Formats: sequence, structure tokens, C-alpha cells
Amino acid sequence: MIKQRIAILGAGGYTGAELLRLLLLHPHADIRVLTGETQAGKKMADVYPHLAFVNLPALVPTASVDYKDIDLVFCCLPHGTTQEVIAVIPRHVRIIDLSADFRLSDIATYAKWYGHEHRAPDLQKEAVYGLTELHRNAIAKARLVANPGCYPTSAQLPLMPLLKNKLIASDSIIIDAKSGVTGAGRTAKQGSLFTEVDGGLSAYGVASHRHAPEIEQELALAAGHGVTVTFTPHLVPMNRGILSTIYVTLAKGKTAQDLTNTLQQAYADEPFVKLAPAGVAPSTHAVRGTNLCVIGVFADRQPGRAIIVSVIDNLTKGASGQAVQNMNLMCGYPEPTALMQAALFP
Amino acid sequence: MIKQRIAILGAGGYTGAELLRLLLLHPHADIRVLTGETQAGKKMADVYPHLAFVNLPALVPTASVDYKDIDLVFCCLPHGTTQEVIAVIPRHVRIIDLSADFRLSDIATYAKWYGHEHRAPDLQKEAVYGLTELHRNAIAKARLVANPGCYPTSAQLPLMPLLKNKLIASDSIIIDAKSGVTGAGRTAKQGSLFTEVDGGLSAYGVASHRHAPEIEQELALAAGHGVTVTFTPHLVPMNRGILSTIYVTLAKGKTAQDLTNTLQQAYADEPFVKLAPAGVAPSTHAVRGTNLCVIGVFADRQPGRAIIVSVIDNLTKGASGQAVQNMNLMCGYPEPTALMQAALFP
Amino acid sequence: MIKQRIAILGAGGYTGAELLRLLLLHPHADIRVLTGETQAGKKMADVYPHLAFVNLPALVPTASVDYKDIDLVFCCLPHGTTQEVIAVIPRHVRIIDLSADFRLSDIATYAKWYGHEHRAPDLQKEAVYGLTELHRNAIAKARLVANPGCYPTSAQLPLMPLLKNKLIASDSIIIDAKSGVTGAGRTAKQGSLFTEVDGGLSAYGVASHRHAPEIEQELALAAGHGVTVTFTPHLVPMNRGILSTIYVTLAKGKTAQDLTNTLQQAYADEPFVKLAPAGVAPSTHAVRGTNLCVIGVFADRQPGRAIIVSVIDNLTKGASGQAVQNMNLMCGYPEPTALMQAALFP
Amino acid sequence: MIKQRIAILGAGGYTGAELLRLLLLHPHADIRVLTGETQAGKKMADVYPHLAFVNLPALVPTASVDYKDIDLVFCCLPHGTTQEVIAVIPRHVRIIDLSADFRLSDIATYAKWYGHEHRAPDLQKEAVYGLTELHRNAIAKARLVANPGCYPTSAQLPLMPLLKNKLIASDSIIIDAKSGVTGAGRTAKQGSLFTEVDGGLSAYGVASHRHAPEIEQELALAAGHGVTVTFTPHLVPMNRGILSTIYVTLAKGKTAQDLTNTLQQAYADEPFVKLAPAGVAPSTHAVRGTNLCVIGVFADRQPGRAIIVSVIDNLTKGASGQAVQNMNLMCGYPEPTALMQAALFP
Repeated sequence: MIKQRIAILGAGGYTGAELLRLLLLHPHADIRVLTGETQAGKKMADVYPHLAFVNLPALVPTASVDYKDIDLVFCCLPHGTTQEVIAVIPRHVRIIDLSADFRLSDIATYAKWYGHEHRAPDLQKEAVYGLTELHRNAIAKARLVANPGCYPTSAQLPLMPLLKNKLIASDSIIIDAKSGVTGAGRTAKQGSLFTEVDGGLSAYGVASHRHAPEIEQELALAAGHGVTVTFTPHLVPMNRGILSTIYVTLAKGKTAQDLTNTLQQAYADEPFVKLAPAGVAPSTHAVRGTNLCVIGVFADRQPGRAIIVSVIDNLTKGASGQAVQNMNLMCGYPEPTALMQAALFP
Repeated sequence: MIKQRIAILGAGGYTGAELLRLLLLHPHADIRVLTGETQAGKKMADVYPHLAFVNLPALVPTASVDYKDIDLVFCCLPHGTTQEVIAVIPRHVRIIDLSADFRLSDIATYAKWYGHEHRAPDLQKEAVYGLTELHRNAIAKARLVANPGCYPTSAQLPLMPLLKNKLIASDSIIIDAKSGVTGAGRTAKQGSLFTEVDGGLSAYGVASHRHAPEIEQELALAAGHGVTVTFTPHLVPMNRGILSTIYVTLAKGKTAQDLTNTLQQAYADEPFVKLAPAGVAPSTHAVRGTNLCVIGVFADRQPGRAIIVSVIDNLTKGASGQAVQNMNLMCGYPEPTALMQAALFP
Repeated sequence: MIKQRIAILGAGGYTGAELLRLLLLHPHADIRVLTGETQAGKKMADVYPHLAFVNLPALVPTASVDYKDIDLVFCCLPHGTTQEVIAVIPRHVRIIDLSADFRLSDIATYAKWYGHEHRAPDLQKEAVYGLTELHRNAIAKARLVANPGCYPTSAQLPLMPLLKNKLIASDSIIIDAKSGVTGAGRTAKQGSLFTEVDGGLSAYGVASHRHAPEIEQELALAAGHGVTVTFTPHLVPMNRGILSTIYVTLAKGKTAQDLTNTLQQAYADEPFVKLAPAGVAPSTHAVRGTNLCVIGVFADRQPGRAIIVSVIDNLTKGASGQAVQNMNLMCGYPEPTALMQAALFP
Repeated sequence: MIKQRIAILGAGGYTGAELLRLLLLHPHADIRVLTGETQAGKKMADVYPHLAFVNLPALVPTASVDYKDIDLVFCCLPHGTTQEVIAVIPRHVRIIDLSADFRLSDIATYAKWYGHEHRAPDLQKEAVYGLTELHRNAIAKARLVANPGCYPTSAQLPLMPLLKNKLIASDSIIIDAKSGVTGAGRTAKQGSLFTEVDGGLSAYGVASHRHAPEIEQELALAAGHGVTVTFTPHLVPMNRGILSTIYVTLAKGKTAQDLTNTLQQAYADEPFVKLAPAGVAPSTHAVRGTNLCVIGVFADRQPGRAIIVSVIDNLTKGASGQAVQNMNLMCGYPEPTALMQAALFP
């Protein structure tokens, strides 16, 4: 069986660990190289005790990787450093980047939101935004896939078919999103301590979160013109999961049922995007550890308005699961390969 | 020192326990009677081990209470049964009802949302809605106070001054509310099990929660005309706290700063309603176990819109704390009496 | 490919859901029948939303099952009712029982701890205790396997080789065990509510838990004589996992390193029992969702004593995972089939 | 009313915040100075948003404190730095030190466990170990009180009367202790992240935790000779609380009931040490936010052995609450002053 020889750059963080969890069940994955900077030299068992009994290479510095025998790179490095690292990877290697570094096609928008000029503008031109269901053909042929952010995935999947079919107004979309704490990564920060998070809830990045322009970029594609959204993320005392509650104005004469029908049709053949049964508000519990996005649509009591609830696991469909889905697409494997585990509940 | 002789009906639930926590520090509270139905005959130590070492009466059936030596009743009985219980309490007893039974002044609205005719329509006429900061004068003189619901308290406090001052549109208010699990009460239900709640997040009662008409009743008072809101509650894996993220359209020419200024002014002398420092999104951690409501206002990226974040402890300002605040007001004690404990954090 | 035609009795509880999670990845599992009593008639999607998008049969009453086309039964019914249900299953069906009903070989001990006479004493005689690593040969040939309890599994795996090799005293074993809340099942009980469990910790069943005689039965087999243990279970605010801290007296002249060596040797070829790296206290995080038992051994500061830490996932190796492991053994499949998923962390 | 003019050194950590929570209700506390190093210059509102609406001084560097107008210091600095800081505080100031720096009376033991020579050996001689119930007279007169560690408090309170009365063997005491995460402090460490802690359980410092010699020092006092204990701490996914399960061998002819009787008698007049009702295993829920220690005693199934369960809130009786209790004692106020808040439950 032909296998992809894989390097995971930045394997010591949660998206790296999640990639390993999934790829260990993948019949075509040959994990050759794992990198880390502060953790270079450590065995995976020391970095991730839950992987102690699996045969995996030790971490090496990213700069030391020899890409000669590598076919595919998953890049899980922090925002900002990624552009320079990817710029020097040889052309025969295909890359799925889980950072935000190549998601915004407009480098001026990138510079505005990320505080510095783009460091690999030529690469940006060839990067393909990796929302699998919406850019399947381009991803299949891409050399560099910019894997979407977690919040954007949860919002774009329900909204894009609705905008494309002109069922909702594009100028009054409100996305109230709630995320588990893994979204903040594995870096030691006071605000991410158990003691600071458990037992409470807060909003953050109100009207200023970097996922807003990423959401808007894709919605604009669907709408055919620029879109500005209201986007408020919240931090919930749980590990995994994003639930986005989305408030929309219906186009004249349209109903919530029209939204449901259109989404049902748009995703009828998709293995990972599902409509919740009528009247059921999906829970993040139902998607934990899976690559699923589950969507429910409700008529609002305010006439002409609807409420959409969308759930994903931020580490899976919101990051590493979608990355593996993209790998499958790029390599010609069935999309669900290694992604069919049922949710871990409870 | 003159004390209020107090009976707590339905003391075996969380609002009952929270009343006890607060009243045990109240110099004018003489807790005479505690009632429970299934728990009648039990000592408080058996019902609430955390109160085992406090001198409190055992639970008796509600029907057995002799009100002769009672001055004040806190009623924590379930919705529906409360109307009949309160109807037969002698007139010399003042009553603070924590159920929803007397909150809706329009009995037709009550019948529509609660599924049965109001059973004490005459009492309803004299009931005063107990949002302390907004109905202070009426509460001070009331015999029967309908203590507000938790979600309504978190939404009404920021919205009422804004509507009254015509700073926001009344026809596009969206309240995305997130609550801790104590809001579901102490009854054993599968959906409230630790195993079903921990590690996940869900919306519930989308566009159909009974707190919507209660919110609207008071907003209508402030607006001077009927108001319909969009209201979506969510269940968060934590015990205490409500965070309401409220999306509003600004009146022509108004700014988020205008909202802040108006709220600052409206609540300048209030001990329990506070504006968060500029740019800070308040966390429920900051109000846990307190009677505080903390509000933050943010300009949205969508022009002409603002985002308001409001936090309370659902058991304290959202229930028992506000009930004690109302008791203080009704009895002529300083409002903060027994309510000055700092938040328990972490 | 030949498949086992499987019925799961009592599929609406957590061990049922965990069996489904595992069996959905099993190439030889053909899930034909799911039963439930109060939930009979419901679709699995209504009972377990996280299984909504998998093709599974609806629940039927246990009494209605036609066993003609069934090869294998997993029985997840409550303690007490199981004996009568299993007694009438035709002889061609092999049974893995996850209840406690057939674990105690001595029916007098059963009667003493479970409060009623054994209702299927003849079946008890043929039942094989299903601790895979210790009773492999008997399980392979068994018709009825009594799948071990969660606490016993976590204690027996480290202790049995040590007792058999006379490395520790048999009269002073202390097992301080801590469990996640799924161990309490899915029945709605006040004590299992999120509000009652989250944020606190308690012991329960001190010196009186029914898993004590089950632990002792197997330890006696290993020791060659009767054994009494000290066993204290605790309820921890988490969903999955058991951590048993075991305090033992070393046999004269023996050291903690001797214990490690013996365990290393005993489990050298086992896929699911592992020794933690030296000096590392294993965490339940490392086994969540897996069939692993990880063991660490430490010399105590009290001379002649050692401390053993053993972790499992109570729903997997402590219940459904071990049941699938036993199925694999009984049916001649490689033992790890469907059990090789990595832990879900975080 | 005469007030103590108080400085809290290291007020930016959890014991500092807990002191403030308690002292804000203390009629004799005048909080004059709060210090922090990395946080110097910040307002308390920025360090602890839950104290934003209380009138408190901003943080200043510890080195800048002028002790002229200070009567009492609570020192919450990290282990190691405390000795040098306290050494230069003027003699008129009384000091309650919450670090471990002055708890071990034998400076050789200190050097062995803390890795460096004691830096203030003369001060050590005058330091009084601050377990209030056991050293009341000495504390009342002390200038420098070494406030006990959290684990030691939970273990010493039940064990000391039993050893003193020779009811239990001193050579086989096993303390299996479980703590909430606040015990790890507020410093950003990967191991204390929500994502690393939530949903799992682990032991740590097995047979090597620094609280062992502190426990043993006091038990030796009670026993009249040296004592070595087995002590295993565990980290539980909750914020507050320690539960110690203690396994003891009864002295010849003694019963668990004798232990209960002796503890009942020893603590009959104590406001903060209580025996749980017979047969009830106390939960940490029952003491959250309180200064209580609740103890339950159980006969073991192994003859001649007993099991003791002891619970405290690690931040209150295990740290800041006991510190305030000691302040009350030192200043002649009733011991329960500012410590009578009921537990926050749920």
C-alpha cells in the first residue's frame, strides 16, 4: 500500500496531537517527522503521555527537517512564523497549513489584522482556502492549503449556501460563537488556567477578533459582494467544541423552512455536514472528536428572522479533522478515511 | 433589634439554599419556618449538608405552616402551584415570590405561555414586578413582589434605560443568553446530569423560552409600546452565572459611548449595577455569589450597531439576592444589608 | 467477511453507547438488535444524539428479542434483572454480561452483598469472570462471560501478579479509588446532577461498596487463600476514568523495583496493560476512550511499603472495551480489533 | 473602632484574593497596602476583576512598603523569597506568613526538603506553627505565625488528638489526599491549564511532596516521638477543596467509635472543626468558601483498622481563612469574626 510520508511541524500543540490521534488510524499515513522548538529532543511520550505507547519519532527542530523523503506537511506552527517556514519547503512537498498565515487572500487585510506585512506574498497567491465542502476542486489540486479557522468553519458552512441562494440579508448577520478552551492552544497563559476558566464564562475579542475578516472573505465570495458581520466569541469552561448561534434576516418572502431545505440540499451528499432533526438544537457533545458539523435552523419570534445553530469540534472539523479531510482529497483517498470514529460521549 | 420572622416555602431547592446563605448574615432575619414537600420531616443537614452546622428548623409541609407569627414569606415553590399557595396566606404577611407565577401582569399572556389559566387573578393585580432598580418605590410598598426571572434581570437592567432614552431601536433586540446549570433547579432530570452536561454546550428553548414575554413586558414599559425580542438561552457547563450578549441597533446619530454614558448615569448611585471598565468584557466569575450586575458596552464593526455584555449570578441577583434586596427595601433596611460578600473566586 | 450478529440489551445506558462507539469500527460486528425498556420505540438518534447520523436499529423491548439470528449478546441491563433475562436466552447465543449478576462465583456472597438470592445459580456455575489478561483461556471457550466491574479491573490488574508471586502481603492491601461520574450510570438521580457534583469531591460507600467482594474473589485466586481489602471509592467531577492508588506492604526483602519488574514481565506481551515510565504517575487523561490500563509503582517513604497507581477508562477497559476485547477473544479475532483508537486528549 | 492596619504582601495570588474576600467583611481590618512584583502599579481591578468595585489600594512593589503605619502583615509571597523579606520587617509589626518558609522548626529538615539553607534561622526560632486549634496559646502571643499548609491542616486536625490519646498506631498512617487546582497557585504553567486538567485525574509528588515533613513534625509532637507517614497528593479537576482519606491501624482494643468520641470531645467547643453525622462521608462541597474542617470516621472491613475522611477548603481553612482566624486570635477578636459565611453551594 502506498503511503504518504508525513511531517508534522509544531507537533507539540493540540492540533498536532489531534492530527496524530486521527492519522494513527489512517492506512495511508506514514508519520516520519515531528517537530517542536522548545520541546525538540523530547520523546512524544514526554510531550503527550496519552501517546506514550504508540511508536512515534521524537521531536526535532523544525529547521532540521530534511524534506527529501517527505510527501506531505501538516504545519501547526504559530501564526506569524509560518510564512517563513513554508516559504523554504521544496516544491515537491504538499502542505496543509493549520495557522492563519495563508487564509486571507488579500495581503493588505492580512497586514491590517495581523500587525505586520505578509512575509510570503507569492505563496499567498497559490494558497487555496481549505473549507473542504466549498472548495473541493481547488483543494484537490492545491499544493498549499490554508486550513480554515475553527470559528470560520462553524459559521461559513451554514451561511455560504444561504447567501449564495440569496435567502438571507448579507448586511445584518450576527454570529454569537462559544468555544472550548483548546482553542486557546497549549501555551501557558494565566487566562487559560483551570482556576481562571472553570466555573465561569466570558466574551473576548468583542468586535475585534481576527476570525471576523476570515469569515467575511468567504461570505463575500458566496454573496458576490463585500460582507461585514457582527462576531462575538466567548470562552466556555469545556475542552472541545464550538457552538455558533447565528441570527439572520430572511430575504423577502423566505422562511426558516426555506433555509433548512437549501442546506439539506447543499449538503445532501456530504459525509460531515448534517442537519439536526427538526426542532432539535444540536449540542457540541454530539460532535466531540468527530469531523461533523451539525446545523439546526429555527424560525424566530421576530417576523422575518431566523436563528441558526451550528456545532463542530474545534480541534477536528475546526482544525485537524478538516486537515485530514483535505489530505484525503489531495491524495485521492475517500474523504472519510480515518475520520469515521463516533463521538466520545460522555 | 427588631427582626423579620421569616418563612421560606420550598426551601429544599437552590433558591431556598441561596436565601439561607444570604439571610444567615442578615441581622434582621429570624428564620422561623422552612418547608418542603417530598423532603418534609428532614433536617436541613440532610437536605443541604453544607448547612449542617447552622441552627435551622427542620422542613415541614407547606400546607402545615401557621402564618400567625410570620412577617415575611419567601416563596420558592415550582411554577404553577405557587398561585394557589399564596392565595391563602393571611394579609398581614408580606410575600416575595421567586416563581414565575406573578411576573406577567397580563393573565392572557400568562395563560398562553404557561399552559393554564391564572389561578389567582386578583392577587396578580396587586403584584409588583421586583426588578429593584426599576420599580423601587412600588416594591417598597408592595405586599406581593414577583421577583424577576434570572434571564430577564440580566437583560432588563442594561436595556431599560436605553429604551427609555430612545438610544436603541426597539424592534431588533437580540439577546443571546448563556446560563449555568443551577438555573435548571435541583430536580433529578437526565438532561441535568453531570454526565450529560459536562464537556459540552447547547442551546435550548430557541425562540420559545418563557422568559421572553417577561423580558418584553418590562421593555415595553420602558419603550412606551410593545416590544418583541429575539431570545436564545444556552446551557453552559458551570454552576452559577448568566452572561447575556445583547445586539442592538443604535438610534440615528447615537454611539456606543452614548449607551455607556446613559447607563453610567442611570446606575450611578446603585450599589449593585456597575459598568465594566472601558473595553473590558465582564465575566460571570466576577459576580459569582454576589448581587452584582456588571455591564460592558462595545461599538460593533457593523456601523450603527452595538454589543452589550451583561453578567449576573443567576442564583443571587437573578433570584435570591434580589429577593433579599427587595426584602430590605420593603422593610426599610439599607439595600445592601447581607449582600456585601465579595465574589467567590476562584 | 463473516460477521457476528449482535444484540445489545439495555443499549440506552452509557455502557451501551460505549459498545456502539467501539463496535461501529469493528469489521466483524453486525449490530442487529438494540433494546431498552422505558426507551423502547425510540430511535437511537433520540436516545443518543451523537449517534444520530449512524445507521442503527431503533430500540425494542428486551422481552421482544428473537434470538434466532443472533450470535452474540452484550447485556447492559441493571443489576438484579439480568439473571432472569439471561436465563432464557437460547444456548446457541454467546453472552457477555456487563452487569454484576454473574461476577461472584459464590452465590452466598452474592446474596449477602446484593440483598437477594441468586436467580440463576446453574448459569452462575458456567460463567467465566472476564478479566481478559488473567482468564484468557477460559474466556475464549466460555458461553457466558461476566465482564468485570470497573473498580475491580483497575485493582486486579496490578495486584494479581504481585500476589501470585508473593511480592506483597495479602492482609494489608488498601485501595483508594477515584472514579468519574459515568460510573453512576444514566439514571436521573439528584446526587448525579451537574450542580451537585461539579466543583466538589466526596467519598462514598466507605467500607461497604459491592466491588470489594469482587476484588477479593480474584485476589484470593492469585494469593491462594482468602483476602480482605480496604476499599474506598470516591466520586470525582469528571466524566470518565478511574484512578486507583494502592498501598501495599512488601514481602520481606522485596522492593518496589521488584514489583515493577514482575508487572513488566507479566504484561510484556499485552496490548492493553502498560507500565508507566519510571517515576511517572499515570493520569486518567492518558487512557480516556482507550482500552488501556497504565500502572506506575513507587517506593514509599515508609520502609517496606510501596504505592501503586493504576488508571483505566471506566467505560472502556472498565466495561465496554473489555467486553469487546472478550468478544474478540471468544470469536477468534485479534484482541485489539476495534480497540486501537488513541486517547481523546484534551 | 480600633482597626488593624494591614499590609498583604503578594496580594496578586489566590491566597491574597481570598484574604481580601474575608477581610472585606472584617470590622477591624483596615487594608492599607497591597504588594505585587510583576503586577506592581496595577489596580486591583486589573489583577482581580471580581474586586473591581471595592475600594482597595493599587499594588506596589514589596520592597517599597513603609511599615511605620502597619500593624499586621499577611505574607503571601512564594516559598524561598519570604525568609529574606520578613527578616527586614520592623519588630512592631506582627506577621502571619502563608508560605512554607517558617513552618519547619528544624532548619536541617527545611534545607533537605527545600533545597537551600534557611535564610533567617533566628526568626525561625520565634515562629509559631499556626494550626489554630492545636497551638492557640502560642499563636495568641506570637509575633510571627507560620500559617500551616493546606494538606497538613486537613491531616493534622483529625490525627493529632488520636495520636495524643494513643488510639492509633503511629507507624502505619496513610494519607491519600485530593486537592483542587487552586493549590497550584496562579502562576501560568502548562500543567495547570484548563485543557490539561479538566476531565482527568492524576497523582503527583508520590512519596516526595514537601508537605510530608510538615505533617510529620506536628504528628510527632502529638505522638511524643518521630512519625513517618505515607502521603500521596492528587490533583482533582475542581477549584477549591481538599479531601484527605486517612487509613489508620487502631490501637489494641480500640474501635472506630472511640476515634469518633475522642474527636468529638477534642473539638466540642471549636467553631470550625466538626464531626460529620454518623455514616456520612463529608464532601468538599460542604466547606467551600468556609473555614470549616469536617471529619467522618468509619470502621474498616479489615479488623483493627479505620478510615477517616477530612475535608477543608484549601484556600480558606487551608490558607487564608486560618490566617484570619489567627489574626483574630492574635488581636483579641472573637475567632469567628469575618469567618461566618455559609458555604457557597452549588
